[in-house]
Amino acid sequence: MSNQSQIAVKMILDLWNSRLKATNEKFSNLTDEQLMQEIAPGRNRGIYLLGHLTAVHDHMLSILDFEKQVCPQLHETFITKPDRAVAEIPSVSELRGFWKTVNEKLAEHFSKLTVDEWFQKHTLVSEEDFVKEPHRNRLNIVAGRTVHLAGHLGQLLLIK
Amino acid sequence: MSNQSQIAVKMILDLWNSRLKATNEKFSNLTDEQLMQEIAPGRNRGIYLLGHLTAVHDHMLSILDFEKQVCPQLHETFITKPDRAVAEIPSVSELRGFWKTVNEKLAEHFSKLTVDEWFQKHTLVSEEDFVKEPHRNRLNIVAGRTVHLAGHLGQLLLIK
Repeated sequence: MSNQSQIAVKMILDLWNSRLKATNEKFSNLTDEQLMQEIAPGRNRGIYLLGHLTAVHDHMLSILDFEKQVCPQLHETFITKPDRAVAEIPSVSELRGFWKTVNEKLAEHFSKLTVDEWFQKHTLVSEEDFVKEPHRNRLNIVAGRTVHLAGHLGQLLLIK
Repeated sequence: MSNQSQIAVKMILDLWNSRLKATNEKFSNLTDEQLMQEIAPGRNRGIYLLGHLTAVHDHMLSILDFEKQVCPQLHETFITKPDRAVAEIPSVSELRGFWKTVNEKLAEHFSKLTVDEWFQKHTLVSEEDFVKEPHRNRLNIVAGRTVHLAGHLGQLLLIK
């Protein structure tokens, strides 16, 4: 571990925390009714993006080898299938609860990792591939998910 | 420089290149007329986002201490002021040209930097502050601008 790798970890975690904070602010400012609106005509509803982001972050608990997923049942409804494809979906209030729990669990695990542990492989890559592709590490998952979150936050900001 | 810092540089540049590629694909698939549309009712037009991203990336040439900006005149129209606040703006075709040039220049400079140079300070931070805040380096600018690009790409994808 060098000073530079420590700095790189801080950079990526700062970005993650900043986008998560901005997303939480937006979700807090939107009522349950507003989250039933579409981000643009014919596009995803706010509730779908809340469920989608929750399912993606929940999956990180497993990809980062932290613990069992909290709400794996959301995967089918909010990742595999598009908005409105599933008739019965959880309420906004239930999803808000999952969203909070999942991100709190991630934060707790993040706070315990050493720099070297951030550069360890994640669970979607094999030992053999990781030798050749050492960038497929835990930190890269967080960097990629930060970019993913930013993309959807850009859309959520369009809900009035 | 450690192996980990080299890996961190690759991770962030890969993310930058991936979001830039996706944005270029979206811009290529949109006609000049489509870029005059709003991303959502009452929101920014595609042309504004094209100008905005171009101005922000052009600014990186200076923040990263690479070379003089190519189109600093875009700053006022596309960063300081909101969409439609300036009556006369460049055409989509002109902006497409600037966008291409600016990103090509960035790519050329990126390809020449060593890992240690990526961890050097950028021009918006003083020597004194950089000692206390070494994460305010060039690589962090690219990471932050990748997240910025991802947010606007999420919006551009809404244009049909």
